[in-house]
Amino acid sequence: MSQQDSVKSNSMRAVYVAGVGMTKFGKSPQTLAELLCDAASNSLSSSPVQEVDALYIGAMNPEEFTGDSNIASLVADALGMTGLPAIRVETASSAGAAALHAAFQAVASGYYQHVLVLGGEKMTHLSTSATTRVLAEVIDKQERRCGATMPALAAMITERYRKKYRLSRSRLEQVLCRVAIKNHLNGSYNPYAQFQQPISKETYSSSKLVSTPLRLYDCAPITDGAAAIVLTSEPTDIAITGIGHGTGPLGLGERDSFTSFPATQIAASRAYQMAGISPSAIDFAEVHDAFTPFEIICTEDLGFFAPGKGWQAVEEGKTSLQGTLPINPSGGLKARGHPVGASGVAQVVEAAWRLRGNSKTRFKREARRALCQSTGGLGSNNFVTILERSDKSPAIQNPKKAPPLSPVRRRKAKQPADEAALSDEGHIETFTILYVTPDGFLPPLALALIRDGRGRLIMAQGEDVTHLKIGRAVFLRKVGDRYLFTVKSHLRKVREALKNLLTRARSLPRKEEMAPSKKEKP
Amino acid sequence: MSQQDSVKSNSMRAVYVAGVGMTKFGKSPQTLAELLCDAASNSLSSSPVQEVDALYIGAMNPEEFTGDSNIASLVADALGMTGLPAIRVETASSAGAAALHAAFQAVASGYYQHVLVLGGEKMTHLSTSATTRVLAEVIDKQERRCGATMPALAAMITERYRKKYRLSRSRLEQVLCRVAIKNHLNGSYNPYAQFQQPISKETYSSSKLVSTPLRLYDCAPITDGAAAIVLTSEPTDIAITGIGHGTGPLGLGERDSFTSFPATQIAASRAYQMAGISPSAIDFAEVHDAFTPFEIICTEDLGFFAPGKGWQAVEEGKTSLQGTLPINPSGGLKARGHPVGASGVAQVVEAAWRLRGNSKTRFKREARRALCQSTGGLGSNNFVTILERSDKSPAIQNPKKAPPLSPVRRRKAKQPADEAALSDEGHIETFTILYVTPDGFLPPLALALIRDGRGRLIMAQGEDVTHLKIGRAVFLRKVGDRYLFTVKSHLRKVREALKNLLTRARSLPRKEEMAPSKKEKP
Repeated sequence: MSQQDSVKSNSMRAVYVAGVGMTKFGKSPQTLAELLCDAASNSLSSSPVQEVDALYIGAMNPEEFTGDSNIASLVADALGMTGLPAIRVETASSAGAAALHAAFQAVASGYYQHVLVLGGEKMTHLSTSATTRVLAEVIDKQERRCGATMPALAAMITERYRKKYRLSRSRLEQVLCRVAIKNHLNGSYNPYAQFQQPISKETYSSSKLVSTPLRLYDCAPITDGAAAIVLTSEPTDIAITGIGHGTGPLGLGERDSFTSFPATQIAASRAYQMAGISPSAIDFAEVHDAFTPFEIICTEDLGFFAPGKGWQAVEEGKTSLQGTLPINPSGGLKARGHPVGASGVAQVVEAAWRLRGNSKTRFKREARRALCQSTGGLGSNNFVTILERSDKSPAIQNPKKAPPLSPVRRRKAKQPADEAALSDEGHIETFTILYVTPDGFLPPLALALIRDGRGRLIMAQGEDVTHLKIGRAVFLRKVGDRYLFTVKSHLRKVREALKNLLTRARSLPRKEEMAPSKKEKP
Repeated sequence: MSQQDSVKSNSMRAVYVAGVGMTKFGKSPQTLAELLCDAASNSLSSSPVQEVDALYIGAMNPEEFTGDSNIASLVADALGMTGLPAIRVETASSAGAAALHAAFQAVASGYYQHVLVLGGEKMTHLSTSATTRVLAEVIDKQERRCGATMPALAAMITERYRKKYRLSRSRLEQVLCRVAIKNHLNGSYNPYAQFQQPISKETYSSSKLVSTPLRLYDCAPITDGAAAIVLTSEPTDIAITGIGHGTGPLGLGERDSFTSFPATQIAASRAYQMAGISPSAIDFAEVHDAFTPFEIICTEDLGFFAPGKGWQAVEEGKTSLQGTLPINPSGGLKARGHPVGASGVAQVVEAAWRLRGNSKTRFKREARRALCQSTGGLGSNNFVTILERSDKSPAIQNPKKAPPLSPVRRRKAKQPADEAALSDEGHIETFTILYVTPDGFLPPLALALIRDGRGRLIMAQGEDVTHLKIGRAVFLRKVGDRYLFTVKSHLRKVREALKNLLTRARSLPRKEEMAPSKKEKP
């Protein structure tokens, strides 16, 4: 049985979109976990499904962007959903779409009934050069060694497109400028977009060159943000009818074509086949315009326009909001912003909103089918998802079968120990003496988990390595961002008792004479 | 419909194990991609399925261990399987098990028929302190700030276990020593194990303290390695009958219990329920003994022994090769080694080999059912997988239905440009001038993809930013690990032609007079 046959098999369960939600994209003071929590809350607030069976999290590189790994556990904890299965899926900048894909299979298999798909990234706290370095790790090592970055390779692809399809430099600039202007105009209607101001031709032309022929306004920005989708096997008003995935060569030096991405073509072919439609059945699309020329190439790879004709479609206005096939009506990565792990999920959120009629702008024709395309790396790991509006009500069909609309299972967010008042005493819950210490710590290092007077558990360093025992009382203090503890030894206890006694004695009237019950040892 | 009901539903396709394979674990000069390729080849060489529909890759942190991200595309490329869908799944040190879990759902859904599951990590090239730092990123941030590491927190859990179950320090040491000795003995029979020598009580007792009460021999080593499994929906001799996943609190400070891992309990409960069995039906298990005490806690969380009785089972020899319930007959993480992303896959490989009778050692009773348990982080993201031997032949049931036994679809591995002889001329395939450069590069930076005289594509830096054009001829040279190109300008061409002419002229007999066809301009 071929791969194709298995897709046609009708044993696969249908998968539907329940709630969708996202944070505003842009520069945010929140942590990645906080952004994901907000997106999750927003998606659950619009969802007939309130309890999910598992979490699928798309994030590209929290390890290097924020210094955290084990992000799936971290997010389950932050959501107050500890216990629930939670996995992180990653395919570079299409990580969000990859998480959706894995979650789709989990629901389609019947293993889970309802799952929460999350995508997010926290990037703006780093310098542009640090972010560029992390982003560049997705490209081939040898190419990276030369100083190549994502914009540099995207620029080389653009130069090749220009040459192949005989565009003059000024014509190319006009076309790319039109894509940027269109997406910024679309973003101006989108309250979740990072940029909500239309831009002029002058703004585009005067923006700095990043890598010839690409200008700043050809590149998606650095962004913080998160998006979320509740998938379910219970029918809702939106079904995922097609889903496809493909890879392509990592290095530019290994490619047969410099002006198309085979990974998109493979993914699209599978998704169209599964949905039983051709490209002409799509009413609008959200595509991965990390660079303006990539939007054009994408519309060719998806079969919307013939190879080398995508730029003409832009010139003719076909891809604008009022065109025959609106592309990136949300503003795309260009104007909505591009928190890498979030983008693949955000595209589907935007598409679902529009299919449900929850958008400020209207198309000429009614939108019933949407396509979302997400790109990983330099077009090396790409996804296509097709959403279709059904005539079912937005709520789950049979309310009796639906789980009760309970409040979101979200615990009160853990209060960081740093911000809460600290009790200065406690006792040892467990301890160790560490001999192989991390950088910046000298062995032996006494560590203990201390239960403080307020009942909270705090990890702390011992001021010395003696007298450690479970249950032993300690003094606790904060130095910088660390906690230190000292064991209250027997001697200390005696001293303390005596001190208390003396204090009390001094507060008594002079006339009454008192003898200390115990003499302090020197 | 509850989560439980959906599991019971018989609409889920059965999933079988076809081929399994792994690399020898230990210190390796190979890259992560090369290790994964070898494991893939090994699994395919023993598999009736030769063509797979997709790749599922478990890796914990290649970003920081090796400086590469976009690992899914990189591995698809390295395998010569470019085009095939490839995703990376991550849940800290259980990443391999997580990849297996996602792949299981993909096959169970019918979306794919055959998938290749890979798990791997490359760690030994870094210093112990660098590796410890990367591994410590899986634990809670506040706890990390105190200098806590994975061994430190594992030690604290051990101290608490000792106290709760009233073990003296010497008794605890004896028990942990027995676990270490048992697993090293088991490893001595395993040709894939990192350590293949039994250890003595003296070796254990004289090994250095890492974090009290844990010694070096209580901790799994730092390892390179990879493992692979071909999953299929076509019946084979081994079925995956149960699979479960759960999470637990990230920080030690958030836990209700310090002597068990609820994430394992949740995962086990689901897996047993799905397989329709109780713990007593398991013949042997591979569990996550990253630290010797974790093996004991694991056997309690899995329901093999009552809470606080796991250490007695070790003392009584129940968990040895000849015991009633052999635990880690492969040597476990302790002796086989622990390349973090590989371990969850390697456990299943080892279990499949043993179920098939491909092991050097024999148990007292025949092994028909095996359980594998994998732990992510400090027990915060755990998986349980149950494998069952069927009475089917090891090959696919109906040979007519099986895909042809074609050679592995592995392209000749890409030869690194560095190692291959470089042609010193070529032409520009595409180019750019980069103005926002990565650290260590000054803008403007000319970059071009050069096709050299041997037809290979090489990314190179321009010696200046002028005369760049697609198709233009260049000189190419290597400086350190980078390539530099210089455009052969018109002037240079003329000079070159003249030089050639003069050389030829000089080689002619003196008597013949020749006039240069063109005068060289200064």
